[in-house]
Amino acid sequence: MEKFEVKAYGTQSAEAPLKQLSIDRREATAKDVEIDILFCGVCHSDLHTARNDWGGTVYPAVPGHEIVGRVTKVGSEVSKFKVGDLAAVGCLVDSCRECASCKQDLEQYCIPGFTGTYNGKDKHLGGRTFGGYSEKVVVDEHFVLKLPENLDLAAVAPLLCAGITTWSPLRHWNVGKDSTVAVVGLGGLGHMAIKLAKALGAHVTLFSRSPGKEKDALELGADQVIISTDPAQIQGVAGKFDLIVDTVPYVHNLNEYVPTLNINGTLVLVGYLGGLDPLLNSVPMIMGRKSVAGSLIGGIAETQEMLDFCGEHNIVSEIEVIKMQEINEAYERMLKSDVRYRFVIDMASLKNN
Amino acid sequence: MEKFEVKAYGTQSAEAPLKQLSIDRREATAKDVEIDILFCGVCHSDLHTARNDWGGTVYPAVPGHEIVGRVTKVGSEVSKFKVGDLAAVGCLVDSCRECASCKQDLEQYCIPGFTGTYNGKDKHLGGRTFGGYSEKVVVDEHFVLKLPENLDLAAVAPLLCAGITTWSPLRHWNVGKDSTVAVVGLGGLGHMAIKLAKALGAHVTLFSRSPGKEKDALELGADQVIISTDPAQIQGVAGKFDLIVDTVPYVHNLNEYVPTLNINGTLVLVGYLGGLDPLLNSVPMIMGRKSVAGSLIGGIAETQEMLDFCGEHNIVSEIEVIKMQEINEAYERMLKSDVRYRFVIDMASLKNN
Ligand SMILES: [Zn+2]
Ligand SMILES: [Zn+2]
Ligand SMILES: [Zn+2]
Ligand SMILES: [Zn+2]
Repeated sequence: MEKFEVKAYGTQSAEAPLKQLSIDRREATAKDVEIDILFCGVCHSDLHTARNDWGGTVYPAVPGHEIVGRVTKVGSEVSKFKVGDLAAVGCLVDSCRECASCKQDLEQYCIPGFTGTYNGKDKHLGGRTFGGYSEKVVVDEHFVLKLPENLDLAAVAPLLCAGITTWSPLRHWNVGKDSTVAVVGLGGLGHMAIKLAKALGAHVTLFSRSPGKEKDALELGADQVIISTDPAQIQGVAGKFDLIVDTVPYVHNLNEYVPTLNINGTLVLVGYLGGLDPLLNSVPMIMGRKSVAGSLIGGIAETQEMLDFCGEHNIVSEIEVIKMQEINEAYERMLKSDVRYRFVIDMASLKNN
Repeated sequence: MEKFEVKAYGTQSAEAPLKQLSIDRREATAKDVEIDILFCGVCHSDLHTARNDWGGTVYPAVPGHEIVGRVTKVGSEVSKFKVGDLAAVGCLVDSCRECASCKQDLEQYCIPGFTGTYNGKDKHLGGRTFGGYSEKVVVDEHFVLKLPENLDLAAVAPLLCAGITTWSPLRHWNVGKDSTVAVVGLGGLGHMAIKLAKALGAHVTLFSRSPGKEKDALELGADQVIISTDPAQIQGVAGKFDLIVDTVPYVHNLNEYVPTLNINGTLVLVGYLGGLDPLLNSVPMIMGRKSVAGSLIGGIAETQEMLDFCGEHNIVSEIEVIKMQEINEAYERMLKSDVRYRFVIDMASLKNN
């Protein structure tokens, strides 16, 4: 298969810092779109993959799945894009396209498994896929998103993971004008959940474990902040929420939050993979037909819907733009939650190096 | 308030066996229906309340919330019933009638709390309500159900708790012709879940931890039995079920079952109140937008719907009829799961004593 070299940033081992390297991209086939990457958001998954925190990383690893750029080449059968168009790529670049999930536009739940934008099994070149910390990417047009023209391009990038990951549960659980939504955690995912839920018309509450987040949360669109470690405040919102979007990325106690769900309410986990420690108590679930659920990113059609909605409502992420060469320092700051609310890499810094 | 004495069976302490005693019933007020009790099903909650297993039991305690009988008196404003009609009473005899839940016909989730048929706070006579192990009961007509004429009356009784407790989640999660339903546990609740899911048109699987249930399960209407301790069998149904109705009344490992849910599937707990030990793993929940939920009995309108459905489809519980005087022995047998599948008391045995 025809291929070409591009500059990228990645790592050769779990312990090594990221540095510049060279990777191959395939020449665009009939259905492919070649994209010149302008910006790439920095997700916690990037860091976990680079450092093999979840196991399974194959090196060299090139992270990045919040990709925004401009089309530089299209295959002969591409219909959605032409050279010069804005384009974006999120967490998935391929799926089986045939299973029950794929047929329902739920590619994120593809039964044989979707191909991740990085560290996925590359069906074209073999080996693993390389992500957006690079000059260019080549992706089947089905997995390429159109971008509204009116938004700041750097600030759009995090919509491709943080945005869709919170949008999908808001839509699946029918959040709208009369909904009461709570968000747990105010990071990359949490701040997008607040913005999107508010724009959908919901009354939005942020749960915070410590004071000091009120001003930021209200500026982002929250109607109130509840300190979840204060029993009186938690008691004051008992039975209030139709949906709780829980973005906390480490093990935490869901039993604080489930009683604040309304009858038929759902707490949806989008950030934490693992055992629900301490033991999840079924009593409030049974006594109010409450659910605890999970949700993963979103499908391609749903991602396009979210981007269009953000265009209409002028919604982007709050970001701090960095150079590619600052990525290792950025990872250290992310581990200390020292970012409001998402780092985005200006890829000109890689190209011009 | 006017009242009269009736014979009942109950206990004066957690340690004492049930024995005959005398309790007061109110004279029917304007909205009340007085029912001569013909049969009363025996639920595990009866035993737990009699023995104060959950705390909160006030003595004397008279259990029984699967009540079937005939109307002997109606208040001046009663419109649904006349003397001589068949009538039934389930787990609730009152609720606030004004909260958001009550207004949605979800009296079982009444925000200030419903009045249980036994050991509930009696708004009329003070003290606690007394259940169906008695000659008569007096209940507001809103909480009295109409019975189809074509069903065996003794075998109808368990529909009032075991039936509605499984019917409500089947309906809430939209089980119908194309649904795949699994049932965990083959007791009073589980055998009703199989019958009702099958009659709704679903493909029905019983999960069993040990062989030997196949014949019974298939006779009840199950399409297959999966031995959940056999990894190959569990793997064979990965991703299969839209709804799992989990009737197991003690702590057990849900992580065996969640991966057998389809994308968007729900495992609903109807039998176990407590901590989900071992830790519930969020990974399959997030990777397939799967939910773990709870559900409690059902509302009054929904209970009537279930009884009408059972009349149309000739569905009743499998029962063993006992005398009131055999209740203590029946409790011991229930603790050993030695009943297929529900004891029902013939109340003539109390009246004629
Ligand atoms: Zn991400
Ligand atoms: Zn697929
Ligand atoms: Zn019961
Ligand atoms: Zn109520």
